[in-house]
Amino acid sequence: MEQKKHKSRVAEKKNEVVASLKNFGTRIYDQLDKGVFPTISMPSRSTENIHYDPHLRQFILGDKSVSRSARNIRHVKPFTQLSWAAMFSNELTIQRKTSTLRDVYYSAQAYNMTFKDQQESNNIITDLETVTGFSREDFSIFPEERSAVFGDLTIEYTVPGYEGKTLNLTSHPDGVLIGPALTSSEFAHTTADKVIAIEKGGLFTRFIEENVHKKHNALLVLTAGQAPRQTRHFIRRLHDELNLPVYIFTDGDPWGMHIAMVIISGSANAAHLRELNTPDAVWSGVWATDIVNYKLPTDPLDDVDIKRLYELQKDPRYQNDPLWQREIKTFLKIRKKAEQEAFSRYGLTYIVDEYLPTKLKQTT
Amino acid sequence: MEQKKHKSRVAEKKNEVVASLKNFGTRIYDQLDKGVFPTISMPSRSTENIHYDPHLRQFILGDKSVSRSARNIRHVKPFTQLSWAAMFSNELTIQRKTSTLRDVYYSAQAYNMTFKDQQESNNIITDLETVTGFSREDFSIFPEERSAVFGDLTIEYTVPGYEGKTLNLTSHPDGVLIGPALTSSEFAHTTADKVIAIEKGGLFTRFIEENVHKKHNALLVLTAGQAPRQTRHFIRRLHDELNLPVYIFTDGDPWGMHIAMVIISGSANAAHLRELNTPDAVWSGVWATDIVNYKLPTDPLDDVDIKRLYELQKDPRYQNDPLWQREIKTFLKIRKKAEQEAFSRYGLTYIVDEYLPTKLKQTT
Repeated sequence: MEQKKHKSRVAEKKNEVVASLKNFGTRIYDQLDKGVFPTISMPSRSTENIHYDPHLRQFILGDKSVSRSARNIRHVKPFTQLSWAAMFSNELTIQRKTSTLRDVYYSAQAYNMTFKDQQESNNIITDLETVTGFSREDFSIFPEERSAVFGDLTIEYTVPGYEGKTLNLTSHPDGVLIGPALTSSEFAHTTADKVIAIEKGGLFTRFIEENVHKKHNALLVLTAGQAPRQTRHFIRRLHDELNLPVYIFTDGDPWGMHIAMVIISGSANAAHLRELNTPDAVWSGVWATDIVNYKLPTDPLDDVDIKRLYELQKDPRYQNDPLWQREIKTFLKIRKKAEQEAFSRYGLTYIVDEYLPTKLKQTT
Repeated sequence: MEQKKHKSRVAEKKNEVVASLKNFGTRIYDQLDKGVFPTISMPSRSTENIHYDPHLRQFILGDKSVSRSARNIRHVKPFTQLSWAAMFSNELTIQRKTSTLRDVYYSAQAYNMTFKDQQESNNIITDLETVTGFSREDFSIFPEERSAVFGDLTIEYTVPGYEGKTLNLTSHPDGVLIGPALTSSEFAHTTADKVIAIEKGGLFTRFIEENVHKKHNALLVLTAGQAPRQTRHFIRRLHDELNLPVYIFTDGDPWGMHIAMVIISGSANAAHLRELNTPDAVWSGVWATDIVNYKLPTDPLDDVDIKRLYELQKDPRYQNDPLWQREIKTFLKIRKKAEQEAFSRYGLTYIVDEYLPTKLKQTT
């Protein structure tokens, strides 16, 4: 299906990001013009202001706000740091360069801007996210982690030197890296009708080798463990812009389960952001009940696994959903866990030939 | 330059691998035909049999050997496991499927072959490497880790469904994943005259954005920390098959230094293998002396850093080379370390515009 209507989404967003930075700067200048000490206010990210929103199906920030005023001697430093971060992000965007959190920390020294440590600099970038509502990736500040995608989607690059060039995501059978160039590309064309996200690299390769993308008309996304933020945003875009349902396959343990949950409902750390999670995505396996039904080879749950399950049982993201509650209870009952590779006990292709189609049907 | 003469290296090697497995099986059958208990012998990998070879510039195994005999009750299990691993590897090769160490462990259960745990199964795969002299990647058993490459090299795939298809490694500006399909491809054409290996993802992206591949006619390899084995083998192939010098850029600390050393001289764990290291590769930075000369922002060395430096000082790979010895001494003297990103204090492109050209000249 052609996706012309979304063709300019990336350019549109870039304009919004630049406008938000400009707005940030304008507010400061306006206050200066009026002869008042400039003040920036933003929602508080303190724990008591983070609430789970059952409608949005993610964490959000409440009504409490905090401000940084140039009038307050204790605020002068974070106020200046935040203004610098906005200026630096604007430079990155204009110069079309990408950066990392680590780079930002050292780059500050080129401007005689001091940060006590990496954590302080990271916090200021999170402040900038909170003020503007955009994520740091929108400001060209990318993480190191890299995951991958494979399948029949043609993208059109927007990065310098590649504008207008296209790549079909079946071009490289090891998978295509999800980095700044990929996440900033437009979606030009796809024949896929679903997204399958996979936790493990070995299984991602298996799925490609066994032509899961063809047999199931799927785009395959490797999360490589906990999905990096840009990968979660990429999955959200696949869902929203291409109207594709998303199925998530992880290891059958509390950690795998939570990898799926963070893709679906996000994290408390990102309560100040939208568009990093995909509420309609579904966790298709490996469920605790799959471990029982498929008689998988298992390892016993250890103490940290069990502690984690009790935590998740009380987590608002896991409430009011019979599936998650049932699976947590089953884990606690059987006291066992199984990895995705455990299906190899029935032969290397069993997971593709038998398990996958069954679970796709079951969770649709 | 066209590289026709190496065009069939991959196919050639595949034949050698299959022949080595066949040879393994034939030896067992021959012994059975003669009415004797089959025995497999191989070099011992015990510490006292691992020696550093200054000529090969890597660790090698000495003359001691061990055997696994079906006659010895204590050997029956490892003998059977090793024979199964050879059979399974042969199946993977014939079916042109890839696998992982984890997959091998679970796949054994499909054959009623028991391994006590993952470690036992990993050890048997290492035995198979030792017996045949080929690495597990040659038997289609790949690690999870993924790194990347970027630059003007056109590869020709040999994996099913992609035979004869080519990809230029500038196709995706986030870099092309180094996975089973890439490492098993033939090198068709390149204009590059050097390889630059980089430890950090952020810097790899920076180098691409700043067109280092064009300005320096380079293939850029992201090691993503300690280079995975298949990436080390890939670098070796770039050096051997394309006659390209290799320059390595890491963080300026004992761990970064050792990332370079393992690419150059390999590890004791792989003493039973060749072709995983590139003795002619050079460590171009960040040196301890660079930290001083470039007045980089630093962190103090902590206790584990210092302990590590004393270990490396005695390591045979670091002996007889004035550069390494000087740098270790300098680290111990200044008691400081610096990351690659530290150059950002002079602006985001300083590392590309000033540092890189200087160091390439210095280490050629």
